[in-house]
Amino acid sequence: MIKERLAALRAKMQEAGIDVYVVPSGDFHCSEYVSAYFRAVCFISGFTGSAGTVVVTQDEALLWTDGRYFLQAEHQIEGTGFTLMRMAVAGVPTVAEYLAQTLADGQVLGFDGRIVSLKLAEEWRGKLGEKQVRFEAGRDLIGEIWTDRPAQEFHGAWLLDEKYTGESAAAKLARVREAMQEKNAGAFILSAMDDIAWLLNLRGADVPNNPVVFAFAYVDKVQALLFVKEEAISAEVKAALAAQGVEIRPYEAFWGLETPEGTPVLLDKAKTAYTVAARVRDAVAAVNPTTLMKCVKNPTEQEALRESHRKDGVAMVKWLYWLEHHPDREALSEIDVSDYLETCRREAGAFDLSFNTIAAMGPNAAMMHYSATPEAFAMLENKGMLLVDSGGQYPDGTTDITRTIAMGPLTEEERLHYTATLRSMLRLSSAKFLEGTTCYFLDILARGPIWDMGLDYRCGTGHGVGFCLNVHEGPNGFRWTKPADMDGLVTLKPGMVTTDEPGVYMDGRYGIRIENELLCVDAETTEYGHYLRFETLTLCPIDLRPVIPELLTVYEKIALNEYHAMVYERLRDGLTAEEAAWLREVTQAI
Amino acid sequence: MIKERLAALRAKMQEAGIDVYVVPSGDFHCSEYVSAYFRAVCFISGFTGSAGTVVVTQDEALLWTDGRYFLQAEHQIEGTGFTLMRMAVAGVPTVAEYLAQTLADGQVLGFDGRIVSLKLAEEWRGKLGEKQVRFEAGRDLIGEIWTDRPAQEFHGAWLLDEKYTGESAAAKLARVREAMQEKNAGAFILSAMDDIAWLLNLRGADVPNNPVVFAFAYVDKVQALLFVKEEAISAEVKAALAAQGVEIRPYEAFWGLETPEGTPVLLDKAKTAYTVAARVRDAVAAVNPTTLMKCVKNPTEQEALRESHRKDGVAMVKWLYWLEHHPDREALSEIDVSDYLETCRREAGAFDLSFNTIAAMGPNAAMMHYSATPEAFAMLENKGMLLVDSGGQYPDGTTDITRTIAMGPLTEEERLHYTATLRSMLRLSSAKFLEGTTCYFLDILARGPIWDMGLDYRCGTGHGVGFCLNVHEGPNGFRWTKPADMDGLVTLKPGMVTTDEPGVYMDGRYGIRIENELLCVDAETTEYGHYLRFETLTLCPIDLRPVIPELLTVYEKIALNEYHAMVYERLRDGLTAEEAAWLREVTQAI
Repeated sequence: MIKERLAALRAKMQEAGIDVYVVPSGDFHCSEYVSAYFRAVCFISGFTGSAGTVVVTQDEALLWTDGRYFLQAEHQIEGTGFTLMRMAVAGVPTVAEYLAQTLADGQVLGFDGRIVSLKLAEEWRGKLGEKQVRFEAGRDLIGEIWTDRPAQEFHGAWLLDEKYTGESAAAKLARVREAMQEKNAGAFILSAMDDIAWLLNLRGADVPNNPVVFAFAYVDKVQALLFVKEEAISAEVKAALAAQGVEIRPYEAFWGLETPEGTPVLLDKAKTAYTVAARVRDAVAAVNPTTLMKCVKNPTEQEALRESHRKDGVAMVKWLYWLEHHPDREALSEIDVSDYLETCRREAGAFDLSFNTIAAMGPNAAMMHYSATPEAFAMLENKGMLLVDSGGQYPDGTTDITRTIAMGPLTEEERLHYTATLRSMLRLSSAKFLEGTTCYFLDILARGPIWDMGLDYRCGTGHGVGFCLNVHEGPNGFRWTKPADMDGLVTLKPGMVTTDEPGVYMDGRYGIRIENELLCVDAETTEYGHYLRFETLTLCPIDLRPVIPELLTVYEKIALNEYHAMVYERLRDGLTAEEAAWLREVTQAI
Repeated sequence: MIKERLAALRAKMQEAGIDVYVVPSGDFHCSEYVSAYFRAVCFISGFTGSAGTVVVTQDEALLWTDGRYFLQAEHQIEGTGFTLMRMAVAGVPTVAEYLAQTLADGQVLGFDGRIVSLKLAEEWRGKLGEKQVRFEAGRDLIGEIWTDRPAQEFHGAWLLDEKYTGESAAAKLARVREAMQEKNAGAFILSAMDDIAWLLNLRGADVPNNPVVFAFAYVDKVQALLFVKEEAISAEVKAALAAQGVEIRPYEAFWGLETPEGTPVLLDKAKTAYTVAARVRDAVAAVNPTTLMKCVKNPTEQEALRESHRKDGVAMVKWLYWLEHHPDREALSEIDVSDYLETCRREAGAFDLSFNTIAAMGPNAAMMHYSATPEAFAMLENKGMLLVDSGGQYPDGTTDITRTIAMGPLTEEERLHYTATLRSMLRLSSAKFLEGTTCYFLDILARGPIWDMGLDYRCGTGHGVGFCLNVHEGPNGFRWTKPADMDGLVTLKPGMVTTDEPGVYMDGRYGIRIENELLCVDAETTEYGHYLRFETLTLCPIDLRPVIPELLTVYEKIALNEYHAMVYERLRDGLTAEEAAWLREVTQAI
């Protein structure tokens, strides 16, 4: 089937005079996660991972993906005519390098300019150097051959109450206009759906688990335009937006957007489609100001987050209590426990999950992005560990939590690795630091105990989290790898929410991850400056059974005991007497 | 006197048609520490600090300096007509900002282009923007009015044996030429004296405590020129250099250096004088490749460093033994103990100190850069703490060590701060980290315990150290402040030597600093990558009397005890029986 699709694509390429055609993962909004309509990489290659780039010539068909997906991709493209290009492996060219090697003077590079960011297109152009290669960005060749393509589904948009957001769309628009002025920009083009959702206090259901609306925005000194499907916006929402100074335009009209002659236009090259961004004559390239505002949660949002995390903690404890007291755990599958956890969350007030729950028994947990399916899942066992990474969407916040649960006897090595993971998590969450400190600077606190053992978790220690929005949100995040540019050194600010989720992953054996969300808050001001610290938002006991207490430092023990005391105090009222008694027991100081 | 000098300078400015004249600290080689000839800032303003910039107009006389020197500068310029400009204080313009505000179209900015780097001049030009301001860089007006200026003293240069350097000048030149080729540069201009000393295995005595030679270098594909005072180079040295392919040119001829037309010239804008660098048409701006090579000590240098640190450790222990057993310590001054320490070092083989010893009793130690003088010094006391920061120049290395010694009973707060400082030092020195880690990333390990108390030490945690060269050497160093650019994120490499010297400074009361030098070495390779760690070079006991043992973690105790066991084993053979017995006692495990 893939072979036929490739043949059809190549025929279209010939007809269109295109020598090389590129299909990256992504949608019109440069999103990380996309809806079914946008799974073009999967359609043409069969590869189902979330990040991949397909390049097709008349002779070659190539798929680039990263280390998380090497095994999966190899398997999925076997026999299709595709070759796997392993990203960041020595000797493997990048997409841009391949294009520069392959394309000759006078040839044509084709892609759908609506799903390629200006930044990506500029990277290709940069590598092509002085080569005379024409970009043909107007043809969605995949769309032309994809006869049974799912529709781009538009669901109803709704307004998130100001009692949760703490700031009106009008006030946010005023701040954005100030930021535009600071950059001497007269207009601002915004394609990122979560930024638009934040800016207009608008939510939807257009991407699985992300409560966003397919929409674009345009802001200048007088106008604020929202490009959105008319039918997705009720009269009530339309009126409310109008009251905030926002006018509605048809979703598709965005592709014809022309900015006023002579007006510098602020745009985030990594977050704006080539089709629109490349037309802008006088672009002021910068990270979306909305991204930098959205990541700092205001006091209303912070208070709401404490409440959503309390609800999420109650759900987690009810689920843990159920799991601990289940008469026949070996009869439960990974899917059963996921489902019951979803039930607990929805009962606690979640309107959706913030991502597909990862419930991974034993060796499955060694795969960081494991997902049980009805075709392939494991049953629980009364030994080893169960890793559960999950989260909910509440009107008062988005949650993300991981706990690793001892299901029975553990080996010394498992206990050692569990204790190191716990130490890592606590060392980062206990940090106190001067204003001006970057996220990058603190990562070693978590990474250290894992590196000491000659291990690593091959991903960031944590990521930013949205407010009733995407569970992955930039720009904050804890990372150790040297950033590509200075924008990667994000300064921590009070109000930022970042996960703290170190882990140990032993291939084919087990996986451990302990994850809390951290809210950056003020600590104190001394003659040396203003200090910040973290308040842990996540409320849920950490399994103490695998801990080797003598490996914890006195400081780590204090942090752990204080955390557990808080968990008990904050959650007890939402629990039954039996659940509360159990919680008291498992949160005893050690 | 300062007023007369200012008047003379202003008269010269008028005569030369110069509206604003700038005098920064520095010499022809963009050095951090300068010899007497170059103390022009002091001559014109009376300010003796190591870093300052003077700007003079017909109406104003301004001195910029940083936080280390605010108090000292205020005092020294009082009544001179100078105004202090406090760097990095809110509302105070930078020099460049002041120039942009002050200079009008058609005016002339004067400076000695031989002591201003191209980078600095470009910064001024950048802030001036479109203003039509002419740079007059050919007049050393300070020199014109400084009638009793000390001479620029040139001492004899000598060759450091390859048994210490491990690499010939010819081999280093070949590596530099490779680096030039990688950057497509056909020539390379080098002004930094320590880089030249490293490149040619040449040493001298032209800057106090820095065994460098006043010299410039020029390298192209065929030639390697050394611009140096003919009389500083003996026939033997000249012949040896010639054998390595190095030709001698007169020192002053550097100012007339013309690079070949059409040849891209590699130069470090921050390390090359405006006079020469601004003439280069096709400059390839980069950090000096010699700087990046010099900071990675080769195996021969590493082995030599172990030996020089052993000798330095013997000197330190003999001195400590003497101090601990001195019958009447209160009769000793800070200068007495410095002098005796210098004696011990010279007996151990040092040919110079690597910087002026800081011996600071009690409150004096709160000043990070305190220096006792014959006019102002303190006597030792049998209470409080004595901080001694010192180092030696050996043919087999440069050392830098700080110990803080309990002279008698201490307060609980002093013990708490001492223990935190020790924890900081040990946490950094115990780090294990994947290749690719930057120095910046590890600083929090040392900074953390100090920040936890709401304190800070207002400087980097450590700096690179030269090999029989300058005690301050870039680019490596542990810092927490966000670097100005990506060059500031220096990746740690095996062979780099960096100090680890956290501290606590309580104004008017006491100061604590514990400093060891760390050599970055290979640790292990696992499936997760190649790990590095630190080997502590410095060998000297750390005073355990102030330590509160229960505040040390189990990991810190192990690191401390292992360190002390190594100190005893490595030093015992160089000591008398009494000294060795004492050392064994003070290095007991806790």
